[in-house]
Amino acid sequence: MPKIRISPALTLLFCLLAGTPLLLHGQQRQRLSAGWQFVRMDMANAWEVFRPVVPDKPESVPLWQDVTLPHCYNAVDAVSPDVNYYQGAAWYRTLLTVDNPYTDGHTLLHFEGVGQKARVYVYTREVARHVGGYDAWDADITQAVREFRQTEVCRSQFHGRVPVAVRCDNGRDTEMIPSDMSDFCLYGGIYRPVYLTYLPQGYLADVAVTPRPVHGSATVEVSGSVQGLRGQPLVHVRVVSPRGSVVADRRVKTDGDHFSASFTLHRPLLWSPGAPMLYRCELVLEQSEPYRHTEQFGIRSCWFEEHGPFLLNGRRLVLHGTHRHEDHAGVGAAMTDDMIRREMQQIKDMGANFIRLGHYQQQDLVLHLCDSLGLLVWEEIPWCRGGLGGERYRAQAEQMLTAMIRQHRNHPSVILWGLGNENDWPGDFPEFDRDSIRAFMSHLNDMAHRLDPTRLTSIRRCDFAKDVPDVYSPSIWAGWYSRKFTDYRSMMEEAAATVPRLLHIEWGADSHAGRHADQVATDVVAGDRNGDWSETYAVKLFDWHLREQAMMPRLTGSAFWSFKDFATPLRPNNPIPYVNEKGVVQRDGTPKETFYVVQSYWATRPMLHIYGHTWPERAGRERERKEVLVYSNCSRVELLVNGVTMGMRSRRLADYPAAGFHWSVPLRQGDNTLVAVGYSGKTVLRDTVVQRYETRPWGTPVGLRLTRVNGKAGEQLVEARLVDACGVTCLDASRFICFACSDPTALLVDQGTATGSRRIQLANGRATIRLAHAADGCQVSAWLEDGSVPRAGIDL
Amino acid sequence: MPKIRISPALTLLFCLLAGTPLLLHGQQRQRLSAGWQFVRMDMANAWEVFRPVVPDKPESVPLWQDVTLPHCYNAVDAVSPDVNYYQGAAWYRTLLTVDNPYTDGHTLLHFEGVGQKARVYVYTREVARHVGGYDAWDADITQAVREFRQTEVCRSQFHGRVPVAVRCDNGRDTEMIPSDMSDFCLYGGIYRPVYLTYLPQGYLADVAVTPRPVHGSATVEVSGSVQGLRGQPLVHVRVVSPRGSVVADRRVKTDGDHFSASFTLHRPLLWSPGAPMLYRCELVLEQSEPYRHTEQFGIRSCWFEEHGPFLLNGRRLVLHGTHRHEDHAGVGAAMTDDMIRREMQQIKDMGANFIRLGHYQQQDLVLHLCDSLGLLVWEEIPWCRGGLGGERYRAQAEQMLTAMIRQHRNHPSVILWGLGNENDWPGDFPEFDRDSIRAFMSHLNDMAHRLDPTRLTSIRRCDFAKDVPDVYSPSIWAGWYSRKFTDYRSMMEEAAATVPRLLHIEWGADSHAGRHADQVATDVVAGDRNGDWSETYAVKLFDWHLREQAMMPRLTGSAFWSFKDFATPLRPNNPIPYVNEKGVVQRDGTPKETFYVVQSYWATRPMLHIYGHTWPERAGRERERKEVLVYSNCSRVELLVNGVTMGMRSRRLADYPAAGFHWSVPLRQGDNTLVAVGYSGKTVLRDTVVQRYETRPWGTPVGLRLTRVNGKAGEQLVEARLVDACGVTCLDASRFICFACSDPTALLVDQGTATGSRRIQLANGRATIRLAHAADGCQVSAWLEDGSVPRAGIDL
Repeated sequence: MPKIRISPALTLLFCLLAGTPLLLHGQQRQRLSAGWQFVRMDMANAWEVFRPVVPDKPESVPLWQDVTLPHCYNAVDAVSPDVNYYQGAAWYRTLLTVDNPYTDGHTLLHFEGVGQKARVYVYTREVARHVGGYDAWDADITQAVREFRQTEVCRSQFHGRVPVAVRCDNGRDTEMIPSDMSDFCLYGGIYRPVYLTYLPQGYLADVAVTPRPVHGSATVEVSGSVQGLRGQPLVHVRVVSPRGSVVADRRVKTDGDHFSASFTLHRPLLWSPGAPMLYRCELVLEQSEPYRHTEQFGIRSCWFEEHGPFLLNGRRLVLHGTHRHEDHAGVGAAMTDDMIRREMQQIKDMGANFIRLGHYQQQDLVLHLCDSLGLLVWEEIPWCRGGLGGERYRAQAEQMLTAMIRQHRNHPSVILWGLGNENDWPGDFPEFDRDSIRAFMSHLNDMAHRLDPTRLTSIRRCDFAKDVPDVYSPSIWAGWYSRKFTDYRSMMEEAAATVPRLLHIEWGADSHAGRHADQVATDVVAGDRNGDWSETYAVKLFDWHLREQAMMPRLTGSAFWSFKDFATPLRPNNPIPYVNEKGVVQRDGTPKETFYVVQSYWATRPMLHIYGHTWPERAGRERERKEVLVYSNCSRVELLVNGVTMGMRSRRLADYPAAGFHWSVPLRQGDNTLVAVGYSGKTVLRDTVVQRYETRPWGTPVGLRLTRVNGKAGEQLVEARLVDACGVTCLDASRFICFACSDPTALLVDQGTATGSRRIQLANGRATIRLAHAADGCQVSAWLEDGSVPRAGIDL
Repeated sequence: MPKIRISPALTLLFCLLAGTPLLLHGQQRQRLSAGWQFVRMDMANAWEVFRPVVPDKPESVPLWQDVTLPHCYNAVDAVSPDVNYYQGAAWYRTLLTVDNPYTDGHTLLHFEGVGQKARVYVYTREVARHVGGYDAWDADITQAVREFRQTEVCRSQFHGRVPVAVRCDNGRDTEMIPSDMSDFCLYGGIYRPVYLTYLPQGYLADVAVTPRPVHGSATVEVSGSVQGLRGQPLVHVRVVSPRGSVVADRRVKTDGDHFSASFTLHRPLLWSPGAPMLYRCELVLEQSEPYRHTEQFGIRSCWFEEHGPFLLNGRRLVLHGTHRHEDHAGVGAAMTDDMIRREMQQIKDMGANFIRLGHYQQQDLVLHLCDSLGLLVWEEIPWCRGGLGGERYRAQAEQMLTAMIRQHRNHPSVILWGLGNENDWPGDFPEFDRDSIRAFMSHLNDMAHRLDPTRLTSIRRCDFAKDVPDVYSPSIWAGWYSRKFTDYRSMMEEAAATVPRLLHIEWGADSHAGRHADQVATDVVAGDRNGDWSETYAVKLFDWHLREQAMMPRLTGSAFWSFKDFATPLRPNNPIPYVNEKGVVQRDGTPKETFYVVQSYWATRPMLHIYGHTWPERAGRERERKEVLVYSNCSRVELLVNGVTMGMRSRRLADYPAAGFHWSVPLRQGDNTLVAVGYSGKTVLRDTVVQRYETRPWGTPVGLRLTRVNGKAGEQLVEARLVDACGVTCLDASRFICFACSDPTALLVDQGTATGSRRIQLANGRATIRLAHAADGCQVSAWLEDGSVPRAGIDL
């Protein structure tokens, strides 16, 4: 076989970077990461992108920035407090060394996702367009490269390399999905992996592996299309079991442009969250330069009983789920493979067995991790809010549904194809017609069943069409968007009666990291929310929901919204501006208290966590008793306060909160050391928290005190504390504070986190900002937005 | 006549704001300034702009900003050192109270200039489009308003007011003029006045007043079109002389859609720069609701003799000219009327009698000021650089030429219609064809002559088409872009031989305000420039040019480039990034040294200025003699150094530099007081400068010293000085320095001036930054971009 001009080591590296083993993709491909330039504006055309430039001459502007892919051009401004995030066109350019090793081979650029519309150019020639920011697609550059190489400019200006440009556009467009009324950023950029792929003349496409378990065995159908080749070559199909043995091996003829093969596997190893067994199907299209392709698959059955429960491989499994956006502090949608791996592992460690990839198709690595970690998946298309558009809009929705199913149907983790979200939400058009929406949803529902007869469909929140999908989730946000969280059970019972298959998707509460409260009223209303945005309220709400869910005998499952805080253009006035703070971890992955609540209910590995690690100071009267909560899945926990035992408790679900691990304890003025000791079989766990107790009531705020502090992970922070005339922290203060520094690079800002925001609400009178580097010799300054106390500064 | 719902006082205010007397515009109009909102992004459509909004709900974003018109959306980023200026769409919206007092009247929005493309909407209905950022145009909203008022949404959502939106777009487009290769910003925004205008059913348009002086008298032709009316009403025409007497009064019939009248004025008062006599032509279209209209005009003849000179009213006038862009610190193109008035007065005070409005049609106020101050005008269309586009491009050029001539032909100040600039500059298209450019220029030339047979045409720099226009300027930048400035005369002579009518447009040099040099070599080459970017070099170059020009007997005139520093996307690496520093005043109007050089040659009012007001420190050996220059139009000047006279000198053009006012004087270590005393007839003028003289040579720079200083106009500044180990200023240092403050509002930045730039080259080892407010309790920090010395801070 001809050699591609990258070393084997590099090939391996690319594959590792891509997050999928080389074998999964028999064709030769290299991931394109370095060597790109970017400009965040529209260019008149590709000529302006590639015309010859003399330094300092007019052609040298605009200035391009060197970037590495993946790259999201809203990495910063999505959460910048002072601007609307950029929505519009932007360009990427690179020079490729194209060296296809195959005779009459195909050269493709494979994009895993570009936000939100894209055009690809080889020099000034447009070679591909794509609409939709979440599905994968190819730009076939074979012919354009061939012809460009004939040109004089190829030799003289580019020395044989191939100039490639990608124009992205995330501009507002009501005839595009998702709607700008969606509660997340419509990010721009080449924010997922890109590959340069060489295919031989003939190759396989659209390979489907469809396993069906039947009475202790399973049938596996393998089919696909044959592209680029005349004649009827053979396809060699091998199936390798999770344990490495070849369990099927056959050569099949191609039938014109297609091939298919069917196998029966006896006593298959079933895939489940607890044992995610993965088979491998290896395909070779036999020609002079063979094409190799590998798909992973798993064998499992799943079923939603009418009115519950959910069955996996014939046994009840309660779906313990969460949600994820492709969004992370500092990078926006352009999460690195490492970030994705860490996040998915964190979700698994929390105890989840289910995830809704809301509200759009996610990248291959995510699905591969769901397969290998054992996370069942609801994946959906971004038909989200705003109403129903015209032909262009509908064509895009259909195309994205088709792409999602074709591209991800071989993943055993996927159990539901979501058709949309909140399609009862009007706004993008003067007209809003329920009948049209119902009709279009039915059309998509039929389409999904036709494309994949093995899976069910789902919708969250569109009550006037709840009979359309196979599985439905109403909107139940007990204690947040409606009623009290203690009403959860009755709300669920009401809803369950109205549809045969209910899965409760989206529940939870915003929590501003670091905000805590001694008393949480369940009927507090802040704005149109039914809570006070404290971690305490969220913890109580999560605790209640999880307890109730654990006691519902026919519950199929649920998924709280959302695993991680994420950027949204819709919430400029949130405590962290432009951040949806419903995550159980912050936007950089730092756990909030709710993370441990969930873990205490769902995880099997012993864990123990005293509520209040980010609650350094609480207040009350002398000798008043204060609630201490410990979240743990241990069978017994003992609490000690300042060395004195407060008693051992046993885990009892009925004993809310914290499944019985709650104490009412006396705290003394000044520092108090809380130690919890948990017992789980032979395992003994300890957790310690030091909390300051303040018995002096605070008065009118008079100033900000800034101090330099060390974070838990060794990071350097500046903490601002709003104090009264006696220096007592004003623990109820929640005003907006702003930070700046005389060295503009010194602060880590625009992260959308509690320690990385230039503008943020105080949490219990406090806020912190992280230093990006040692930053000596400069001054950090902080001020309240309302100007009610003097600006404060600290010299570093 | 029906009453408009604005009080007379308000009407007057609007007229004063508009800068033109009410009488000039008989129709009722109000300037729209307050009550607008702006968003710097594209919206999907006008529905998104006006749909109902509930606070904090999805429709509430993006966030709109309250703005006052005129408004330029590149006011800040045009000169921001870290970004490419925004080029793309943006929206404005307002709610108008429309109350047209006329029966079947017309309601127009009159835009004096919107960058660079515009669409106007009444609610969701598009009512007008315009391409071209520099000519005036109307959006007729009569019908759209009438129909909108029938709608339910008008009553329910807008309470009878009329929602109007304007979408601007200054995105890159090679099929639009001017080219993005132009050396100025293609600003975006409604950056010129906008009026809501009510016209009666019939009205006059396109009124031309064409005076022709003939042997001691003058004929005046008045013509125009009649719009909106059937029948043949009378037009009452009156001409009022500059002294207020009615010198003509006649009723003329309209001929279908047109009218015309002709008068002879005996012994007319001629218009000239020294006596800008303005006549008034008052027109009334006689109908039940009369339409009134007034035009100013002036009577003058002008002629370019072959090979010079230029004659005004039959006598030689040397054109002493400069250039202006619509650009100012802090506002971009959206200069206020006050700013414009001050600038035009400053140009007049400098002694100019001529201005090229380069490179585009400017707003009415500018032309009115040229008329009333006495500044002859070369006005041109922005066909500038890049090559020649296709049909859309050419149609726009034709349309802009037509608009410019129709809109400004009644101004007596205008003497030349410029067809373009640097049309020999390729780059926007792969092809560049001289013949096509020649052909198109000839076409424009014919068009201009057809539209206005009374004026000549002109072009600067397109040597292969120099025979096309009536008047031609080659590119002669002696001492800057080519050769030495002492070669100026020979370069002019060479050029003059090649065309019959030469006017030297564009000469000068960049000067970085505050940079001075004791020795100026005429053969220094910095980059591709032939000077050192010092004010000293520019002063010497200007001095030489002006002296030579004063001694050229057949010179028609010249115009130096440019009056004021201005923003340009092409020069990110200039000493002030993104600022073309060729102005004789800074971007905020602060004079540089060259201003006084020009004034000393051109102004008639006595003036005196010692070179070096911004040169606080110079260096040399002990007892070395140093040059002191005084720029003055006085006949005699005496210089005193530290109280000791250095002698009286007489003004002698032949005695370069400073027309003889140069001395070689001894300075002592430390402060030296220089006093110049000038004598002009009975007027005695004095000027004083204190300069520190440093005899210690400086060594390696070791640090920055920051001090708080008071500016001359009372402003507060922080000065940074790069010093060696002994504290001696490193006077040759020209590295980039950056400023920041822990209070982000404290520094006045992004002004494009020497005291208003976050990133700027040191001038003689110094740089200053201005404080926007008292700014106590914060820290200003400064650092060299190359990191070669430690960051420095000063606590305020």
